[in-house]
Amino acid sequence: KVLWTVLVTMLGYASSLPVGEDALCTAEQLAKYRIIFTGKWSQIAFPKQYPLYRPPAQWSSLLGVTHSSDYSMWKKNEYASNGVRDFAEKGEAWALMKEIEEAGEKIQSVHGIFSAPAISSGTGQTSTELEVHPRHPLVSFVVRIVPSPDWFVGIDSLNLCEGDHWMDEVSVDLFPYDAGTDSGFTFSSPNFATIPQDTVTEITCSSPSHPANSFYYPKLKILPPIAQVTMMKIKKSQPGLSAPFINLPAKSNEIIDTVS
Amino acid sequence: KVLWTVLVTMLGYASSLPVGEDALCTAEQLAKYRIIFTGKWSQIAFPKQYPLYRPPAQWSSLLGVTHSSDYSMWKKNEYASNGVRDFAEKGEAWALMKEIEEAGEKIQSVHGIFSAPAISSGTGQTSTELEVHPRHPLVSFVVRIVPSPDWFVGIDSLNLCEGDHWMDEVSVDLFPYDAGTDSGFTFSSPNFATIPQDTVTEITCSSPSHPANSFYYPKLKILPPIAQVTMMKIKKSQPGLSAPFINLPAKSNEIIDTVS
Repeated sequence: KVLWTVLVTMLGYASSLPVGEDALCTAEQLAKYRIIFTGKWSQIAFPKQYPLYRPPAQWSSLLGVTHSSDYSMWKKNEYASNGVRDFAEKGEAWALMKEIEEAGEKIQSVHGIFSAPAISSGTGQTSTELEVHPRHPLVSFVVRIVPSPDWFVGIDSLNLCEGDHWMDEVSVDLFPYDAGTDSGFTFSSPNFATIPQDTVTEITCSSPSHPANSFYYPKLKILPPIAQVTMMKIKKSQPGLSAPFINLPAKSNEIIDTVS
Repeated sequence: KVLWTVLVTMLGYASSLPVGEDALCTAEQLAKYRIIFTGKWSQIAFPKQYPLYRPPAQWSSLLGVTHSSDYSMWKKNEYASNGVRDFAEKGEAWALMKEIEEAGEKIQSVHGIFSAPAISSGTGQTSTELEVHPRHPLVSFVVRIVPSPDWFVGIDSLNLCEGDHWMDEVSVDLFPYDAGTDSGFTFSSPNFATIPQDTVTEITCSSPSHPANSFYYPKLKILPPIAQVTMMKIKKSQPGLSAPFINLPAKSNEIIDTVS
């Protein structure tokens, strides 16, 4: 039996994975995945204006959804929904959960919603499970960068189905995005609504092209990944007993200590 | 067919629900519940030292577990685990998730873990799903009070099974607890480790009996509930499509606006 392992390391365009709107997924009924989010927002990798106090650099809860191509949680170069705005600006999840619920009820484009606890520092990990379905094989999620005006990292419509099987493992580097709803330039900028609202844009080491921008590093070609996400298919175990974890390290920062 | 609805409103001893270690659960195989957590930490109900800035009053992610009586996440008058300490002091979930994982692996006392996104204000709601099993019918969870030294609300080992059936709905008022690991007296006290560690204690309007305590209201008999949790059994829907939400209000603060 062939072991399918896909390691996807994309530099700066995690949101433009080929989704294949017409690609038929003929995989077995359901698949469960463990998703591990790793924050790599260290002061060494991102020294400029690194937030140390009130609040120090950290990550919000992770809020995600498994869905079909009829639903989109967020998309680069498109306008953020009110739910994504509330989440990116304040970490408030309710409106976004309601949007997902409505998409699930009206056009049955949603299979399930999932969330993972917040991380209280810039480097660390969090984890949860998700379930995909042949008609809902796509994964999207958002995690707010705290503190920040309206910046987040996430995945848009990553397809876990490959024809007739589910991928065993996918790993994606994550880079910061601006939700386009708050004009703050730095991590600790005061609230200042962007009117009219702008589209979701990627923040790079050269864009926005202004020295005040917290991610402006003119000597770099690309930013180091500020986070990473790994999704691993959970093998079936005894009925009625889930497999909540797969060899997680004892401490949440063990992986990043060795990698970075 | 009889509709079983149990409304449990307990004043100050949510953690001492009768668990019945020997009560056999003969309910159908599995049951899914929607859990809705409602923050009621308003400035009107809790005017003393109400945190308005950096950070304003809010709630951490909710981290919970479904389990058997062989596992205990936290218990009043017992010492908090390192995982509960990290979560209550910093909202850091990793160590607690590891403890749950180990309990699941070693003594199969855990069915599953669940989490819900943080709430960015003192009043508001968050929600997720959980699954219980006849051998693992108990629910426990914690939510950190932010800001605070090591204060949290939660449920300890609530049994959703009643003999041969699962309860349809359970609602519990929640009151603050002190994890016993940080000696701060007020919401914004600086970190000051309690050595030796104290046990988990309920914070009431008269205990700790000191005027500096943020919850010290000598004119009250009991504190108003600072939060509430409701668990509703999810009816079975089409296979492959979960029922992610049950008539949630459009805005997370609609319920509390009318109730309080």
